[in-house]
Amino acid sequence: MRDVYVAGVAMIRFGRYPERDVPDLGAEAVLLALQDAGLTMRDVELMAAGCLFQANAMVGQRILQEVGQTGIPVVNVANACATGSTAFREAWMAVASGEHDVALAVGVEQMGKMGLLGGGGGSGIRTEGVVGSGLMPAVFGQAGMEHMRKYGTTREQFAKVAVKNHKHSTRNPLSQYRNEVGLDDVLNARMVAYPNTLYMCCPTGDGAAAAVVVSPEKARQLGAKVKVLASILTSDPWTDRDLTLPDVNTLTRNAAKQAWDRAGVGPDDLDLVELHDCFATAEILHYENLGLCGEGEAGRMIDEGETAHGGRIPVNVSGGLLSKGHPLGATGVAGIFEVTSHLRGSAGERQVEGAKVGLSHVIGLGSACTINVLGV
Amino acid sequence: MRDVYVAGVAMIRFGRYPERDVPDLGAEAVLLALQDAGLTMRDVELMAAGCLFQANAMVGQRILQEVGQTGIPVVNVANACATGSTAFREAWMAVASGEHDVALAVGVEQMGKMGLLGGGGGSGIRTEGVVGSGLMPAVFGQAGMEHMRKYGTTREQFAKVAVKNHKHSTRNPLSQYRNEVGLDDVLNARMVAYPNTLYMCCPTGDGAAAAVVVSPEKARQLGAKVKVLASILTSDPWTDRDLTLPDVNTLTRNAAKQAWDRAGVGPDDLDLVELHDCFATAEILHYENLGLCGEGEAGRMIDEGETAHGGRIPVNVSGGLLSKGHPLGATGVAGIFEVTSHLRGSAGERQVEGAKVGLSHVIGLGSACTINVLGV
Repeated sequence: MRDVYVAGVAMIRFGRYPERDVPDLGAEAVLLALQDAGLTMRDVELMAAGCLFQANAMVGQRILQEVGQTGIPVVNVANACATGSTAFREAWMAVASGEHDVALAVGVEQMGKMGLLGGGGGSGIRTEGVVGSGLMPAVFGQAGMEHMRKYGTTREQFAKVAVKNHKHSTRNPLSQYRNEVGLDDVLNARMVAYPNTLYMCCPTGDGAAAAVVVSPEKARQLGAKVKVLASILTSDPWTDRDLTLPDVNTLTRNAAKQAWDRAGVGPDDLDLVELHDCFATAEILHYENLGLCGEGEAGRMIDEGETAHGGRIPVNVSGGLLSKGHPLGATGVAGIFEVTSHLRGSAGERQVEGAKVGLSHVIGLGSACTINVLGV
Repeated sequence: MRDVYVAGVAMIRFGRYPERDVPDLGAEAVLLALQDAGLTMRDVELMAAGCLFQANAMVGQRILQEVGQTGIPVVNVANACATGSTAFREAWMAVASGEHDVALAVGVEQMGKMGLLGGGGGSGIRTEGVVGSGLMPAVFGQAGMEHMRKYGTTREQFAKVAVKNHKHSTRNPLSQYRNEVGLDDVLNARMVAYPNTLYMCCPTGDGAAAAVVVSPEKARQLGAKVKVLASILTSDPWTDRDLTLPDVNTLTRNAAKQAWDRAGVGPDDLDLVELHDCFATAEILHYENLGLCGEGEAGRMIDEGETAHGGRIPVNVSGGLLSKGHPLGATGVAGIFEVTSHLRGSAGERQVEGAKVGLSHVIGLGSACTINVLGV
């Protein structure tokens, strides 16, 4: 296995594109990522495409029909919320193996046309859940309550995650929402699944992101400096715990352990983290799951602003799923876009100054967890 | 990239399992393939799962819930009819890369519960097409007519493919159908899309197949001799041809060229071929696309029995898609099962004696083509 570098990244602004379709959204992200890398489709040797809700519809090949068919291998993948990041790992593997020198990952989703997921009201904007029925809000509400019981974490502490991530998103022109919300706004919003109110649940949306990964030699030619230090994918471990609801913690802990082993870095080396804040409670849990703080310290961490922009370890400076949005297939590749942008110093107003190592984390229940550690 | 060996294979009999579900069918194939390899789930380091019609439903992980969750990376893939063979290529890549020593590919589909695909009658047994509407019968009917016009190929010659493959399947206990059909039966059956009658179209069905691939060192330990000489995946090339219907030939020709380059063998070295006979016309076209004969000679080839069991180059001794069946996600892995069985001398009554090199070919329109060349 050889080193792999990120040569180009792009995402389109997450939001609503009712007049467009999935291949069209994906194609725009692909063309922007190629332009960013200084490459064309003729240079790409393999494409991995992730689109959860059209997983069987040859999305990768349909994107190629728009950007240029060259006969390359195309793999369409699906892995719940980790669909896009699984596509990224496919591209990484294709290059790390030595089989290909340039591979492209694209993630795309169009949820706006699907109507409301998970029942709930009729606003068409935010829903009580991102996948299927009300299972996800229940799982992450329950997990949050368990944290409250064990460590005394408060409703206000969870709510502060939503305040922080919405504030972060005001600096991100590609975020679905770009408005601040106050702590009282969050706490007084409609309750979805205790303790998560409406602003503490990610919205549905449309979006696409793409990343080009290359061999060390290509990276030298292109001047690409961002290296993939680890690309980890895990599924549910065997457990003898009496599972009444999915275990949202162990998956991430196992993946993190593998990531540190592989990358040769630890949580203290991270300059920024994009983690899977599908619900505000999830972000708090993942501080501990990723080792950003000790057990039971996540509430204190958010209180003290350690994970805010400018803090000790900024988390979700993009706005996170809560405000940037969560078009499922696009999310994992968008995480790569975000971390890469900071490591290259191209993140604009939201730049984490001097960032050298960053981590992107995605968890899909059912289950798949990806952790990608990038460094310069 | 290092050599990869097939250590274990299995398929369940294709047919109808209305009382079972997709994870259950897949789990049975996985357990049989592991048993065949002399391994357990604890030895498997990566799983690639292919199930087209449940591509977004975490089929790989749901199979692990039945056979043993071990936390391994699971990738769910979809690539039209090439879904299973794409899963196989994922497993091959995982081992060839050096990242993993043991990887598992599983392909599964349950079409019997989906009702009739492609409209047509109400028998529930055979339908006029395998994917979506009547597009596929039209494409392969048209392509057959073009061959008739160019080379004088006859209806009878196409029909002989169905006679041959049904006859082959009488020796295959895992085939969906195991009955012979006469030439007149085929010619006089209900016309689906000229020149293909009902018996010249593959049925829908349920099924599953699995394959375990391993590193050279593991292969030595396990006594596995069957080596992957090439695992090729291609998509539609750029073309300036005025395409009114998909081009069913170029995809395979491009993949075949890459396969010969990679495997270091040519069509004359093949002892058996499992090719994608979704329609009888397709098999005739692929004789030429795969270089089994010269241009325009495919009609003569079937007349002279060259592709029958015992002939110069037996094609679809399993019964092929036409009689063995075509549960989409399972088909590509079932091709690996078939070729491997012959190379190991374990194909029972249908054994091609002394087989040293075999090829499995799958084509999915939209598009993906896989060619796997195996040898001992």
